[in-house]
Amino acid sequence: MAEIILEDESLRDGLQFEKVIIPIEEKLMLFDLLRSAGVKRIQVGSLVNPKVVPQMADTDMLASRVIGAQGTLATGLVLNAKGLERAVASGLKHITLSASVSDTHSMKNVGKSSQEAINSVFQLIREADEAGIDVRAGAQCVFGCVYEGTVSEDKVVDTLCQMASAGAGELNLADTTGMGNPVQVKRLVYKVMQALPNAVLSLHLHDTRGLGMANMIAGYEAGIRIFDTSAGGLGGCPFVRGAAGNVPTEDAVHLFESMGIATGINLSKLCQVVDKYELLLGRSLPGRMNRVLKTQSLCTV
Amino acid sequence: MAEIILEDESLRDGLQFEKVIIPIEEKLMLFDLLRSAGVKRIQVGSLVNPKVVPQMADTDMLASRVIGAQGTLATGLVLNAKGLERAVASGLKHITLSASVSDTHSMKNVGKSSQEAINSVFQLIREADEAGIDVRAGAQCVFGCVYEGTVSEDKVVDTLCQMASAGAGELNLADTTGMGNPVQVKRLVYKVMQALPNAVLSLHLHDTRGLGMANMIAGYEAGIRIFDTSAGGLGGCPFVRGAAGNVPTEDAVHLFESMGIATGINLSKLCQVVDKYELLLGRSLPGRMNRVLKTQSLCTV
Repeated sequence: MAEIILEDESLRDGLQFEKVIIPIEEKLMLFDLLRSAGVKRIQVGSLVNPKVVPQMADTDMLASRVIGAQGTLATGLVLNAKGLERAVASGLKHITLSASVSDTHSMKNVGKSSQEAINSVFQLIREADEAGIDVRAGAQCVFGCVYEGTVSEDKVVDTLCQMASAGAGELNLADTTGMGNPVQVKRLVYKVMQALPNAVLSLHLHDTRGLGMANMIAGYEAGIRIFDTSAGGLGGCPFVRGAAGNVPTEDAVHLFESMGIATGINLSKLCQVVDKYELLLGRSLPGRMNRVLKTQSLCTV
Repeated sequence: MAEIILEDESLRDGLQFEKVIIPIEEKLMLFDLLRSAGVKRIQVGSLVNPKVVPQMADTDMLASRVIGAQGTLATGLVLNAKGLERAVASGLKHITLSASVSDTHSMKNVGKSSQEAINSVFQLIREADEAGIDVRAGAQCVFGCVYEGTVSEDKVVDTLCQMASAGAGELNLADTTGMGNPVQVKRLVYKVMQALPNAVLSLHLHDTRGLGMANMIAGYEAGIRIFDTSAGGLGGCPFVRGAAGNVPTEDAVHLFESMGIATGINLSKLCQVVDKYELLLGRSLPGRMNRVLKTQSLCTV
């Protein structure tokens, strides 16, 4: 029985900026490898403008082909009304709706001020609820923004409170820029927990400053039990040196299992996913445990 | 005023397996860049058999040229009597003496059983003490061995207790294989602290499984204030995929400073060291903050 849930986002946050378009049959195989390894939740893509993010153009089709998968919840990222419409049509039963708490980041990402994007999410949560879709609602840039610097923790807490009131069943704190540190993670998680004692919280971390794993431990110690990760640590923008992906799923599995915390995921099987990504993309990915399993005879997991 | 000490080991643990021999003038420049950035302790090399580790052949000469450096303590790694003799002759005022708690690792590394190597260290501590050299004594493989798996924590504690009795002023716990996890780090540190309440402890971590930073935080939370790091994360064996270097010094600086813990180190200046290593070695190093400083306008440090 898994004590924590890792939501693998390699098919979405991992692939979204890759220039080589991965065919849907390959994505289906990646999904199946993740599922076979025991990953309980898989974000299959984002329902955004395919002209802006061509890699995500097949998300509807991919979603419609995997929603019945045994033992794994398929989910997708939705940022606007058009995306929700497509999510409903695809048959998705679970989505993440998300808005940035930084104005500059929000303008660059969705062409709306932060407050406009947040207000739009409140409305979309209600509509998704009416359509029978479970919603996780998230705030982006909660630990800082590369454009604006510090972000108001009160604004984050207030935003999440309103998302919960609108009907979101889970609330996601996203360190979009990888600027959080362990002290900050604990402080913000405690503030959110104080404001929303019964909320289910999850943490979306990027490893830009090498703090992904340390922040994940801080989140776990603060009480978080759901973490977004990406097989191989795939992600970030290949054209911006210094932008890194989510915490590698296989390294997160090793971390938790080595501390006696069950993830329900088979590490060797999971590493097959990493192998497949490395083959498809023609390069090594930053995650460590795939290399460790191949080169060292003894492992703690 | 620095609240923690980072001992940069890029010139030793970082370079020791590099095939390209770095000329001593370049090493002197690297030392000086580290010193200028505010690094308080620099391990300049190891006094081991130059036939086995040719990169370290100039350690005596390098040491003799930097021991007077203002504001920075130059130190070296010593594993046997011959090494201590060379350390004394070079004028070093501080060394680390170290032995592995794993038999197999010890045989491969120094051709002695673990107990023989440890006994030899007890003797060398006394001799160094008589020669007026400050000694840090360390145990290697304290969180596990790739050959033997689990290591006895009681043996680690007992070894460190005897090293302290022999006169070591600081005790170092080395995660040589990068197998430790945060729970384990805290447990072992607490055990050592219970046995030796007045000891000065330090932690030597490798990032093989991506847990270097998380283990460093765990060590800090347990009370450790001295950490071994390597500029750029330089280290590991380039011929063994999966073996990684120490925690990158610049990422450790960012981590602590972002949490309000002073390191006394200037991050921008430190990144000049990383640039220089990347230039000399002709490849990118795994540390994150050098890339982040170059690509992102806002940083929390």
